[in-house]
Amino acid sequence: MARAEDRGPVRYGPVLPEPGLPVLPELSAIVAAAAGRATPEPPGGPPPLLEAAGGYWLRRGLPTERTQVAAAPGGAPLLLAVTAALGGDVLVPRPCPAWWVPQARLLGRDAFHVPTPAECGGVPDPYALLETVRRVRAEGGDPRLLVLAVPDDPTATVAPPEVLHEAVEAAVGEGLHVVSDETWRDTVHPGADTVLFGPAEMYPDAVTVLTDLTGAFLPPSLPAACARFPATAAGARLADRVRDILTATGALLAAPAAAAAGHVLGEPDAVTARRVAAVALHARLAGALHEAVLAAGALARPPRAGRHLYADLEPLRPHLAARGVTDAQELEDHLTGRLGMPAPGGHRFGDTPAALRVRLSTGPLVGSTPEERAASLTSPEPLELPHVERALSMVGSTLGDIRGEPGPAGPAGGGPAGEGWEYRR
Amino acid sequence: MARAEDRGPVRYGPVLPEPGLPVLPELSAIVAAAAGRATPEPPGGPPPLLEAAGGYWLRRGLPTERTQVAAAPGGAPLLLAVTAALGGDVLVPRPCPAWWVPQARLLGRDAFHVPTPAECGGVPDPYALLETVRRVRAEGGDPRLLVLAVPDDPTATVAPPEVLHEAVEAAVGEGLHVVSDETWRDTVHPGADTVLFGPAEMYPDAVTVLTDLTGAFLPPSLPAACARFPATAAGARLADRVRDILTATGALLAAPAAAAAGHVLGEPDAVTARRVAAVALHARLAGALHEAVLAAGALARPPRAGRHLYADLEPLRPHLAARGVTDAQELEDHLTGRLGMPAPGGHRFGDTPAALRVRLSTGPLVGSTPEERAASLTSPEPLELPHVERALSMVGSTLGDIRGEPGPAGPAGGGPAGEGWEYRR
Repeated sequence: MARAEDRGPVRYGPVLPEPGLPVLPELSAIVAAAAGRATPEPPGGPPPLLEAAGGYWLRRGLPTERTQVAAAPGGAPLLLAVTAALGGDVLVPRPCPAWWVPQARLLGRDAFHVPTPAECGGVPDPYALLETVRRVRAEGGDPRLLVLAVPDDPTATVAPPEVLHEAVEAAVGEGLHVVSDETWRDTVHPGADTVLFGPAEMYPDAVTVLTDLTGAFLPPSLPAACARFPATAAGARLADRVRDILTATGALLAAPAAAAAGHVLGEPDAVTARRVAAVALHARLAGALHEAVLAAGALARPPRAGRHLYADLEPLRPHLAARGVTDAQELEDHLTGRLGMPAPGGHRFGDTPAALRVRLSTGPLVGSTPEERAASLTSPEPLELPHVERALSMVGSTLGDIRGEPGPAGPAGGGPAGEGWEYRR
Repeated sequence: MARAEDRGPVRYGPVLPEPGLPVLPELSAIVAAAAGRATPEPPGGPPPLLEAAGGYWLRRGLPTERTQVAAAPGGAPLLLAVTAALGGDVLVPRPCPAWWVPQARLLGRDAFHVPTPAECGGVPDPYALLETVRRVRAEGGDPRLLVLAVPDDPTATVAPPEVLHEAVEAAVGEGLHVVSDETWRDTVHPGADTVLFGPAEMYPDAVTVLTDLTGAFLPPSLPAACARFPATAAGARLADRVRDILTATGALLAAPAAAAAGHVLGEPDAVTARRVAAVALHARLAGALHEAVLAAGALARPPRAGRHLYADLEPLRPHLAARGVTDAQELEDHLTGRLGMPAPGGHRFGDTPAALRVRLSTGPLVGSTPEERAASLTSPEPLELPHVERALSMVGSTLGDIRGEPGPAGPAGGGPAGEGWEYRR
């Protein structure tokens, strides 16, 4: 895989976080109230946060002691610690979130991508998984960890429980530990005909659940994530080792972020209402993006969760080739400029660089100013707001233009770009 | 080196941060004002923070462009990124701050300790440095980075400019990059007869300056650190690579911590007045600790900066042996229980485990409650405050008891222990 910095406009690393919706006033008040706290947060997170995380998981059918939980300032430092604590090589689905693989690479370990079955983003094909484990072992590798996601980023799909079960069964049978990234668990779109049944319910002794709270609960300005380790002696040892590594890497929560995380994990009504409203908004935007992609003659699985859509522009390959676009990086360059919003190529998610795939996000459609984003959140018909219509129409015409005659290259940008939307340098 | 979790009461990693002094009200207000920010901080830190860091270094004789600066949520994640960006093995003085070596080890690299000359904590002996570089290379290693500190933790001394110059000259001559950890630069004790002349002034092209702002400016509840890279093409490439790694490791500042860091780096009068008051307080406490150590018949270099004292109890070895204390870990266990405050053994700083050395901190003497800590900060005679007197007298009697007849083992604790002072589990 090309290093992120080698080419392309996304200068620093794979995919940048997006501006969040306006911060819930109750949450701002919690953060402000923590402004005078002088005491550092303990490695792994303070007791009230761990307690609240236990309640969060209990409400989702996973009874959880405080000692089973560790918190960190983000999913990436937490996965880095878990990966380092387990040692060995890592297996991930293809495609997978952009932030998974760098943790293994940074530790000097290998990460092996396993293909996913159709409609099963985030979960590797069980047979391909077994084959990969055996091949890696035969070549002297030491696979010890499978990371998967239900629902997943980038494809925004939810793998069916039976496929998930087979994949986890295969991993456990090979002695792998499983990290289930459930960052998007609480963002399943209303009306999505999906059953969420997590790996930890299936194989409680072999699965660590990881939740980056900026997926469904916190603004990205307050990075925080939690892990839930198995309620076994081995799980306790893993948790201890992870806390040691969080200490060593200085991965301590800022006090205001810890206070915010503890608050949202308690899920008071205002937090739940905001989450539900945000999910509904992103679901509508994702649906509209999906329609635009299909209308342009491209493909995408129907989005079922989260804030993304994974588009496959393979049917448009001849038209794109006529514009000099023949791989994922070129597609990213082409679309990012014209859409005025990030459209990271599939290669950033471990997908084949030759494939013409990009991840689109609903975030930029929400608005380019705090006022626009607030209006999107409260509007009963967000798709009819002028700034949303403009942004969607820019997406539609940019994608539609691909099949049309190649016109003169217009000026880049002009879409929903604005404050905060340039790639930062 | 024994893994931190293998034994000893410091369960998670080497040395835990301490409760800070009360947060400056002006700073609390800045943090509270950032509570509503929804936009994530860019990897490497937001422009106002980078600008303020440039001003901070300019005032210390180091003109600095914004592009030369990167910020991260703590010294450890920043050093991890720099170490990963440079590649290769790492050289550090013996002893050195507890958080340096784990970054190299985590990356699967070796860290080699080089002895320091007398009175030169934080800076390796130039001849020993050259010898180590050549030996490591002869054995197939690839040393690329020297990390040093002026002033240093744990010894709280300031190396003389001529020794520092020779050490940096030796490192540069061998093609090493130098990271100068200047976390304690702004905590030199009043009246300390020391000249601060940093490595970046000596060899601007080969030195990256790293400052953890919780050393002199921020409470430990708001982790933030800055690095200043050389103003060269190679420095710019290193800075870019560090920003990439900060992105990949999700080492993003929480918005309230970023706002606080930007504020203190501007050094408004209130921030400087607070820093000066805190330094004066810790200087008096360190002086009192030093006296207690000498009075007990042990050794310590006179503290010149920071909040630590590095005590050598070798002269008391027979007395300690009679109590079953024969190495640094046993000394840590012995003193931590009796002092009721952390007394990490020298082995946690890379020092010889067989040596009877511990690091004492002034932090616990400041008080065990926010009210006591506030009183210490504002009192004209902090050493006369009852809680400070009690704590110092506990230190004095615990150390003094070592030379006395071993009495029946009394209950552990009873010192300045209190809220926040147990080792967290």
